[in-house]
Amino acid sequence: MSQQYRSQFPALDNKTYLNYGGEGPLPQAAMEAIVRTYEHLQQIGPFSMKANAWLQELTGKTRSIVAEELGVASDSIALTEDVTAGCDIALWGIDWQPGDRLLMTDCEHPGVVATVRELQNRFGIEVAICPILETLNDGDPVSVVTQHLTPKTRLVVLSHILWNTGQVLPLAEIVAACRQFPTGGEPIRVLADAAQSVGVLPLNLAQSGVDFYAFTGHKWLCGPEGVGGLYVSPEAMEVLRPTFVGWRGIEVDATGNPTGWKPNAQRYEIATSAYPLYAGLAASIEVHRQWGTAAERYGKICQLSDRLWKQLSEIPQVSCLRTRSPESGLVSFTIKSGSHRSLVQFLEQREIMVRTILDPNCVRACVHYFSTVEEIDRLIEGIRAFLK
Amino acid sequence: MSQQYRSQFPALDNKTYLNYGGEGPLPQAAMEAIVRTYEHLQQIGPFSMKANAWLQELTGKTRSIVAEELGVASDSIALTEDVTAGCDIALWGIDWQPGDRLLMTDCEHPGVVATVRELQNRFGIEVAICPILETLNDGDPVSVVTQHLTPKTRLVVLSHILWNTGQVLPLAEIVAACRQFPTGGEPIRVLADAAQSVGVLPLNLAQSGVDFYAFTGHKWLCGPEGVGGLYVSPEAMEVLRPTFVGWRGIEVDATGNPTGWKPNAQRYEIATSAYPLYAGLAASIEVHRQWGTAAERYGKICQLSDRLWKQLSEIPQVSCLRTRSPESGLVSFTIKSGSHRSLVQFLEQREIMVRTILDPNCVRACVHYFSTVEEIDRLIEGIRAFLK
Repeated sequence: MSQQYRSQFPALDNKTYLNYGGEGPLPQAAMEAIVRTYEHLQQIGPFSMKANAWLQELTGKTRSIVAEELGVASDSIALTEDVTAGCDIALWGIDWQPGDRLLMTDCEHPGVVATVRELQNRFGIEVAICPILETLNDGDPVSVVTQHLTPKTRLVVLSHILWNTGQVLPLAEIVAACRQFPTGGEPIRVLADAAQSVGVLPLNLAQSGVDFYAFTGHKWLCGPEGVGGLYVSPEAMEVLRPTFVGWRGIEVDATGNPTGWKPNAQRYEIATSAYPLYAGLAASIEVHRQWGTAAERYGKICQLSDRLWKQLSEIPQVSCLRTRSPESGLVSFTIKSGSHRSLVQFLEQREIMVRTILDPNCVRACVHYFSTVEEIDRLIEGIRAFLK
Repeated sequence: MSQQYRSQFPALDNKTYLNYGGEGPLPQAAMEAIVRTYEHLQQIGPFSMKANAWLQELTGKTRSIVAEELGVASDSIALTEDVTAGCDIALWGIDWQPGDRLLMTDCEHPGVVATVRELQNRFGIEVAICPILETLNDGDPVSVVTQHLTPKTRLVVLSHILWNTGQVLPLAEIVAACRQFPTGGEPIRVLADAAQSVGVLPLNLAQSGVDFYAFTGHKWLCGPEGVGGLYVSPEAMEVLRPTFVGWRGIEVDATGNPTGWKPNAQRYEIATSAYPLYAGLAASIEVHRQWGTAAERYGKICQLSDRLWKQLSEIPQVSCLRTRSPESGLVSFTIKSGSHRSLVQFLEQREIMVRTILDPNCVRACVHYFSTVEEIDRLIEGIRAFLK
C-alpha cells in the first residue's frame, strides 16, 4: 500500500490503527467536504428556500451513493444517525402481536439485544436465540437458523458479519430458508445488522432478498460518525410502519396537515440531521472507489487478514478464534493468560490500536484494504513484547 | 448591536437574516471547535481507549452546558439528533393502553402531529385537540387546556413558544393545572416542544414541573444542525421507558449482556452520534453567554420584535397576527393579497430571509438578540417594495 494513498487519512499518520470495526479514519477529503458544506450553507442560508432546495439535493445524492454501495435503489434507503437506529426502525416497525416470535443469533450487539428485550416487555413477544457462535469453524449457520424457526416466527435478526468473531453469515441462503418456511401468513422477515459488512463485502442486496439492512458510514466506509442508514426492501416497506416520525417522513396538504408517509424509505427519516456530514460520507466513499472496486477492496482485506491470522497463529500463547483463514477484516484472538484488557492497554501505549470483546472474551484486530504488512508486523511484535 | 459582535457569524455577512426559527447562523467559534474536535479525534483514535474516554467527557460536558441553559440537573438530559426525536422519545415511552387520551394543541408541528396519529394507530389511544390558536390575542390558554382534560388523559402535548404565531404558553401554570386534575391514578404529564423556546426564554424547568422538554441546538442556540436533546424530570423518568435503544442507554455485565438502563437520562440515547458537533454547540452557547445573561438576551429579543411588529403594523396591506407586542422573537403577519410565497421569494432575491407558515397561512420573520434595527428596516422596505 503506497504511503501516498495512506497519507489521505490523517489518523494513520501517528499510529498503527487496527480498529476499523470500531471506527474508520476520516480521509482529509471528507473533512474538507464537511467544512465546505458548512461554509456554503452559511453563505446561502442556513435556512432559506435556496438552502432547503440545496439540502434536499445533497440528501438525495447521499442516498444514491450509499444505495450504489449496497446494490439497491436509492428509494429504499433511509438515512439514519447510526446502525443501531436503523435496527430500531426495523425492530419497532413490525406490528407485533403477543405470542409472535423473534429469532436472533447469540452474536448480536448488546444494543440490539436490549431493544429486542424491550419489545418483549412492551408487546409480549417471545424471543429465541440460536447458537451461531459455534458455527465459526464448523457447522452450518443456515441449518442452525432454520431449526429455530417456527410458524410464529416473524423476524430473524442476525449480523451479516459477526462483530465478535468476523464470521460472514450466508445472508442470501438464510433469507431463502426464511422465505420457504411455512408460516400460514406473512413470510418470515430478516433484519441484518450490517455494521461490519458495509464497506467490506461487495454487496448486491436486491439479489439477496433481505428485508432490512442497517448500516453505518463511520466504520469500514470511513465516513464521519453520526451518519448511517437502513435499507428496506420494496416488499417489506409495505408492511413496516414508521415509529419515530418527523417532518422528513411525511407528506402534508396545503395547510400543513399530515396526509401520509413519503412514498419511499424517507418515511423512516425523522427531522433535521447533521447534513454537512452527508457530504463527508460521500467524499469518503469516493476515496475508496478511486482505489478499486468493492470486490478488489474485499480481496485485499482478506489477503491482509489471512496474513495477520497466520502470524498470530504462530505465537505460542495466542489462539485465533478461527481455525481457518478469516473471511473478513476482523481477526479475533485470545491469549493464554486471559489478560486481554492489559494487552490492549499495553499496545495502545505503543500507539497500536486494537480492542477487547467481552463475548467471547477476546481481542479484536482489524485490517482494511489500506492496512500494511508493516502494521501487522508491529502488532505481532507488540503482542510478543507483552507476552515476554 | 456592534458589527464586531455580529462578525462572529459568517452567515450574517451577506444577507438580512430573519429565519432563526428555522435555523440559527453558526458562529465561527463553533465551526472551529468542530474542526478541532475532528482533528483531535483523528490524532488520538478515532477509536481507542483514550478517544472513548475523551468522548465520554465531551458528551458529559455537553449535557452539563445544555442543562445549565434549561435550569435542570445534567442527569436529566438526553442528547438527541433533533427536537422531533426528543418528542418521539417522550411520546413512545409512555405505556399506552387502548382508550388512554392524549391532548395536544392545534398549533403543534406536523412532525409531532404525525407521531401522535401513529400512536393512535398502534395503541388505540384517543386524541383530543384544544384550540390554542384563538388565545393568541385574547383568552386563557390554561383554561383552554384544563377544559379539555379528562380522567383518561395521560399526556398533554404543547409548544412552549408556538412556532406559527410566536405566542408563549404559560408552561408552569399549565403543568400545575394538569397536576391538580384528578385522574384516580398517575398524574397527567406534559411534553413541551421547545424548538422555539430554548435559546430565547430564560428557563428554570426544574421549577416549572414539566415532565418532558424536547429541544434543538440548531435554531435559537445557533449550534450545528443534528444536535438536540430531551429533558426528562426525575419523577417522569421512573415511568418513561426507552423506545429506540442502543449501547449508550444500557448497562452491561462482564460478558456484555444488557442488565438494565443507565441510571440517568442517557438511557434514552441510542448509539454513535456526530460527537464533534457537541463541541460546536458548546462553543455557540459560550458565544451567547459572553454577550449577556439569558434574561438580557430575551429582553433584547422582545425589544427588537416589538420594533419589528410596530413597523409591520404601520404598513396598510399588512396585518400582524398579534394585536399586541410580541412575547418572543417570532413575528408572523399576513398581506392582503395572500401571496405569501411570492413575498418570501421576492425578499429572498434581495437577500432578506423569512419564511411562509401554512397554518395559519402567514409569513414569519424572526429577530434574535443580535439582530439590528437596520435589518428590520430592510425587511420593511422590502415588503413595501413588493406591495408597490
